[in-house]
Amino acid sequence: MDFWVIREILERAFHEDMPMGDITTDCTVPENSVSKAVLIAKQEGVIAGIDVCIEAFKMLDPKVKLRVIAKDGDFVEKGSQLLIVEGKSRALLKAERTALNLLQRLSGIASTTRKYVEKIIGYNAKVVDTRKTTPGLRALEKYAVRVGGGTNHRFSLSDGVLIKDNHIKAAGGIEQAVKAAKDSIPHTVKIEVETQTLDQVEEAIRAGADIIMLDNMSPSLMEQAVKIIDGKALIEASGNVTLDNIQEVAASGVDIISVGAITHSIKAMDISMKFE
Amino acid sequence: MDFWVIREILERAFHEDMPMGDITTDCTVPENSVSKAVLIAKQEGVIAGIDVCIEAFKMLDPKVKLRVIAKDGDFVEKGSQLLIVEGKSRALLKAERTALNLLQRLSGIASTTRKYVEKIIGYNAKVVDTRKTTPGLRALEKYAVRVGGGTNHRFSLSDGVLIKDNHIKAAGGIEQAVKAAKDSIPHTVKIEVETQTLDQVEEAIRAGADIIMLDNMSPSLMEQAVKIIDGKALIEASGNVTLDNIQEVAASGVDIISVGAITHSIKAMDISMKFE
Amino acid sequence: MDFWVIREILERAFHEDMPMGDITTDCTVPENSVSKAVLIAKQEGVIAGIDVCIEAFKMLDPKVKLRVIAKDGDFVEKGSQLLIVEGKSRALLKAERTALNLLQRLSGIASTTRKYVEKIIGYNAKVVDTRKTTPGLRALEKYAVRVGGGTNHRFSLSDGVLIKDNHIKAAGGIEQAVKAAKDSIPHTVKIEVETQTLDQVEEAIRAGADIIMLDNMSPSLMEQAVKIIDGKALIEASGNVTLDNIQEVAASGVDIISVGAITHSIKAMDISMKFE
Amino acid sequence: MDFWVIREILERAFHEDMPMGDITTDCTVPENSVSKAVLIAKQEGVIAGIDVCIEAFKMLDPKVKLRVIAKDGDFVEKGSQLLIVEGKSRALLKAERTALNLLQRLSGIASTTRKYVEKIIGYNAKVVDTRKTTPGLRALEKYAVRVGGGTNHRFSLSDGVLIKDNHIKAAGGIEQAVKAAKDSIPHTVKIEVETQTLDQVEEAIRAGADIIMLDNMSPSLMEQAVKIIDGKALIEASGNVTLDNIQEVAASGVDIISVGAITHSIKAMDISMKFE
Amino acid sequence: MDFWVIREILERAFHEDMPMGDITTDCTVPENSVSKAVLIAKQEGVIAGIDVCIEAFKMLDPKVKLRVIAKDGDFVEKGSQLLIVEGKSRALLKAERTALNLLQRLSGIASTTRKYVEKIIGYNAKVVDTRKTTPGLRALEKYAVRVGGGTNHRFSLSDGVLIKDNHIKAAGGIEQAVKAAKDSIPHTVKIEVETQTLDQVEEAIRAGADIIMLDNMSPSLMEQAVKIIDGKALIEASGNVTLDNIQEVAASGVDIISVGAITHSIKAMDISMKFE
Amino acid sequence: MDFWVIREILERAFHEDMPMGDITTDCTVPENSVSKAVLIAKQEGVIAGIDVCIEAFKMLDPKVKLRVIAKDGDFVEKGSQLLIVEGKSRALLKAERTALNLLQRLSGIASTTRKYVEKIIGYNAKVVDTRKTTPGLRALEKYAVRVGGGTNHRFSLSDGVLIKDNHIKAAGGIEQAVKAAKDSIPHTVKIEVETQTLDQVEEAIRAGADIIMLDNMSPSLMEQAVKIIDGKALIEASGNVTLDNIQEVAASGVDIISVGAITHSIKAMDISMKFE
Repeated sequence: MDFWVIREILERAFHEDMPMGDITTDCTVPENSVSKAVLIAKQEGVIAGIDVCIEAFKMLDPKVKLRVIAKDGDFVEKGSQLLIVEGKSRALLKAERTALNLLQRLSGIASTTRKYVEKIIGYNAKVVDTRKTTPGLRALEKYAVRVGGGTNHRFSLSDGVLIKDNHIKAAGGIEQAVKAAKDSIPHTVKIEVETQTLDQVEEAIRAGADIIMLDNMSPSLMEQAVKIIDGKALIEASGNVTLDNIQEVAASGVDIISVGAITHSIKAMDISMKFE
Repeated sequence: MDFWVIREILERAFHEDMPMGDITTDCTVPENSVSKAVLIAKQEGVIAGIDVCIEAFKMLDPKVKLRVIAKDGDFVEKGSQLLIVEGKSRALLKAERTALNLLQRLSGIASTTRKYVEKIIGYNAKVVDTRKTTPGLRALEKYAVRVGGGTNHRFSLSDGVLIKDNHIKAAGGIEQAVKAAKDSIPHTVKIEVETQTLDQVEEAIRAGADIIMLDNMSPSLMEQAVKIIDGKALIEASGNVTLDNIQEVAASGVDIISVGAITHSIKAMDISMKFE
Repeated sequence: MDFWVIREILERAFHEDMPMGDITTDCTVPENSVSKAVLIAKQEGVIAGIDVCIEAFKMLDPKVKLRVIAKDGDFVEKGSQLLIVEGKSRALLKAERTALNLLQRLSGIASTTRKYVEKIIGYNAKVVDTRKTTPGLRALEKYAVRVGGGTNHRFSLSDGVLIKDNHIKAAGGIEQAVKAAKDSIPHTVKIEVETQTLDQVEEAIRAGADIIMLDNMSPSLMEQAVKIIDGKALIEASGNVTLDNIQEVAASGVDIISVGAITHSIKAMDISMKFE
Repeated sequence: MDFWVIREILERAFHEDMPMGDITTDCTVPENSVSKAVLIAKQEGVIAGIDVCIEAFKMLDPKVKLRVIAKDGDFVEKGSQLLIVEGKSRALLKAERTALNLLQRLSGIASTTRKYVEKIIGYNAKVVDTRKTTPGLRALEKYAVRVGGGTNHRFSLSDGVLIKDNHIKAAGGIEQAVKAAKDSIPHTVKIEVETQTLDQVEEAIRAGADIIMLDNMSPSLMEQAVKIIDGKALIEASGNVTLDNIQEVAASGVDIISVGAITHSIKAMDISMKFE
Repeated sequence: MDFWVIREILERAFHEDMPMGDITTDCTVPENSVSKAVLIAKQEGVIAGIDVCIEAFKMLDPKVKLRVIAKDGDFVEKGSQLLIVEGKSRALLKAERTALNLLQRLSGIASTTRKYVEKIIGYNAKVVDTRKTTPGLRALEKYAVRVGGGTNHRFSLSDGVLIKDNHIKAAGGIEQAVKAAKDSIPHTVKIEVETQTLDQVEEAIRAGADIIMLDNMSPSLMEQAVKIIDGKALIEASGNVTLDNIQEVAASGVDIISVGAITHSIKAMDISMKFE
Repeated sequence: MDFWVIREILERAFHEDMPMGDITTDCTVPENSVSKAVLIAKQEGVIAGIDVCIEAFKMLDPKVKLRVIAKDGDFVEKGSQLLIVEGKSRALLKAERTALNLLQRLSGIASTTRKYVEKIIGYNAKVVDTRKTTPGLRALEKYAVRVGGGTNHRFSLSDGVLIKDNHIKAAGGIEQAVKAAKDSIPHTVKIEVETQTLDQVEEAIRAGADIIMLDNMSPSLMEQAVKIIDGKALIEASGNVTLDNIQEVAASGVDIISVGAITHSIKAMDISMKFE
């Protein structure tokens, strides 16, 4: 992650959390007081966002000393130390909540993603995210998915073509829609078509879709679709995938399984900051 | 919620989701095409964020027609219609994901909050949130907590005093810390002190704290604290409160129960947008 | 004051004062020329804003050398040196006016506040500010009030409840308004009610107001109000308080005296920057 | 004044005054309540900023009805009605302070400027402002000076050349500095030179300065300078001009008298908003 | 183009062109004066940016009346009327230069693109742009390329993979680089590899590149590359393509020809605004 | 150029070019890889924008090592090395295009300006730019004109008066327009009047214009105008000046020749970045 992206998010967060300063800290803690604190995982999981934490502390105390113990992607046990920070007490106290809010959320995403990924080890399929991310935090959340072992679906409406129902209707059919896309989009982008039936799958193949999304199909229907497509396009399974059913989905032979829940419905990982 | 606050968040979200337009919609859907769509709850829950949706559609099509069926705070059954939008097809397709991302998240928060609130009906205690919100979305998330029947803890470090361990140590004791706060903060703000032991509770009372937080105490310890405080301060219970234990906490006689999970670890409510 | 708050204000100020550079300096002063300059008080007063000056010079010359002579809160005599800066001549010349505009204004606020505070030494009352601050500079101006020995009223409409006439009418009475507030606001915030008559004062007490504002009352009426309230709420005197009448107001026994003039109608302190 | 400039300032001001809404109004005043209020001058003076008020109310209630009674530049008596607003009660209450803060400040500037201007009626000289304005509000404050009958000095360091002591030293003399400026600045901009002695005045004339500033000279010295310059350049008097001495300064024959106090040390005009 | 994207660019442009208003217009043209003006092409070319003009006039006069004569993509003759605007004279005069600066630049891009496109009618190849666009205007400039009949290369470093020399070296070879990309990028994005030699072309095919860029190859070398690739990947020709040599390049059989000059080195189309 | 102006433009550019990172570099180049690269002119010309490049690299790698070989204003031969950068490979690859886009454009402007300037060596006239600059880049582009040996016309509508046709009509005549301007604009700004005929020239002189623009006049008409004006005002020639006719224009005796093409229709200078 590029630090100038992180800084923009942190600036907004600090502004939100301290429009007029930290009135508790400013009156109880002397300006020149120095502290040391350690971030500790209070449950096991995959860490994501250590760099975000680091920037948060640096922004409020540019001379803070940092010792990084856990790197993004590390699976840590409950009780593990993650990061030691030493600097101005006021800066540590002011940055604490913002740093943790982001670290806990990103680690929650990475940890959840890892669980999905582990369920389908041995299968061909990849776990990917969706655009169901928190407005304003997409770059960070998609990064956390990668840290957790998943890969990303398109970043935005500008960088991937996904032709859905309404596009198809408006264009007059799958073939017309795919053709319209081919004529106008950057040649660097693949074309994906959403399908609900095997007829649509066949139509999408004929139209030359690069990727075919099987939307809310049953595993057996997906298996048939996989056979029909037969390598002519990448295949994405989509719709209400859970930890319980992802293995069955993967077993149908699809290439990609998109899971909205890994960004929109995660538990923050429990991480706390202890002052020494 | 004030619409100019909402617009700022939406502008950022649209920029994130369409840095260079919606390449699928722009090439498949004619500019003058008009559509009608309905937002439908795919599970039961408490709705929060209808105004955010409305602004999202208005920003991309200022002339969109809207029929509001569910208001914020309504508990809706699975399958309920929430909002009908009719306007430029391109605008509806482009705004859809951003509108839903926010509506689903806020409704998830409101629904979860409601569950906590309902668990302690009949008790004196209120459910309040924390500062464990998503950076950039605090105003919306704290609003959703209120919609769900909770109330808010302080909005930021600028508008509430919460004297913790490290403040106490730096100030030289609870009494010194409270005094320092009284001398310098706005007179409109109460002073809250975090305590872990009954000794600290007594010290906080002597210091004249307006609110005493019982941090991670057992129910029986909380009961003793409540007796000691005996109406001399508001009492907040804090630390790992869950749906399973909140009733026990409330039974101890505290006034306020803060729950981080209602903002940091919620499931998005399942809501979809169907085009007619 | 947190430097990232200061930087935002300075960036806007520099942009306003140099949309296309400083055309005089850029053509007459060589890029590598170095200068030393000293900020001097041309009248006595209380200094506030030295940190703002420092950031201003640092932003245009990150390697500038600074010797701080006067600290915020110091009362200085006419002719006193405040700060010595040594760095790129161009940077000093470009930052000069912006640095002084802020330093002079903040020192003017601190100096005026100090005068009010000194008038009521020996009385119980505190001098507080209002929301009558300069749009965009509230954080700095409220800071200057504290530097001058005053304390702050609420920072914004979000962090304090002040129930006025129109709120009372809309809510159907003082009791209803206070109750509505108690039910919905953060428990960390006190409730203040504005009163014009003794009847309203009594109603406010009954309603459980934490703070009662006596709005534009005569000193004798205030005295009676103080007796009625009798410690059951904090008492704020408000309305056309001047240096001439503040002592009389304080003598009535109120706790807090709010003065709009200390932010909205001050003389900038005369400070100049001399190059050596 | 262009409304898009005003809107930027208002947006920042509203954000500052309501980071999380108006907690008093939001809980006591129903969303659909409608009110009518009138802005009233509580002292006589010159009004400036009515458009700013109008935009403030429009931003929070786009359908607000407005009746403009006083226009910018009108001199109004104590008790005069200025503007009647009718719209959502919540919007009026939320916009009130921000609208008044700006209207009072700008009217204070216009009123003060008018006093200086009236002192020198019959003389050739004009009253002009300086760059000693409030950071972030320069466009508005310079507008208010014009409303009060003054004219503006340069807007920023980018649009006027003012060669001071340090520029002269760095360039090696007045002639060198003026030449450097002539060679590099836009041909649309005049060159002004600051002088403290009659020798410098003569040197500035020889150098071809368009404007000569007489800095902190006594009236008699200014008279001599005026004679020496004899129409070869515009003449600006600068330095500690007050209402008491401006007539004497004007009598010396200068063309322009710059007064810092009309922006940096004014009393806000007393204006209030009464709800009916 | 989405109007909220346009508005952001226009706001910045207006701020740049009128930090303190239009001092000529504000003093010579009465506020209520109304004018009618027509935009006229002073040379033939392809129009792009009419919507940008429209927004520019609307932003300064929301009630402006507009009659659109030329649409984006129209080829117009010298002397053609493009757009008639009728509204506040001040608004038209203030918006004129900003509106024309954008319209002329975008029409220049569209016109230049059209010339390249017409040169290779009958060939299979498409003309595409590059990332050599004006910082801050990429969305508009890439739009203008499409209006001119070209298509777009990737919009940014985030939405297309282009593996160049240095990536190959860092990754340890083309195959390693392609594999690394396949493992981590969104599945919606194609992988392009830059090649300078036929050996590299063969390596890229083996690696499974979706697109192979032939960088600065001679036409005969390109022909050989086309034969080797033989439909296994899309082929992009890149490097110093001009109107003189593009036909020869197209004749080599490539699919895509990227031309930096259509955005970085264009002549603005001559368009003026005449007041009636 | 002030670095804080540059940083704002670069931040926007990086955001535009990397909304979600550089997906190619991030997966192929190790984070700790270090590279050295040199910027090389691939054609001769005048360099402008080296500081912009330097900031671009510094922003992405604050510890980058830089060796500046060519300074702004240097005329370099084809093949010349301009700048050597050594730092994190990822940073160099990510900054490359943005740095070059600006350096190439600014150097293109400087090189073109230099050509115009050289054509009229020996004549009295200066080459100046116009407001026909790229929205968002005016400060940089006007700087590049100065680097190329030209000078600037007004920076914006706020800092120069140019009375055109429509202003004259609205004001009721040239004299009225000039008088209106004199009464209201800053005294630091000159007044320029646009003229098409000799009658208008005479009227402008009578009105006391400081600068008279001869708009689209033939060289012989300009010569007559110059005689009529006879030193009473600066004279600007404007309208379709090219490298072919500028000498003839200069020979007519005008003081200033404005050329829109040096900013709106330039070829980017060919500069590339080679990694070692």
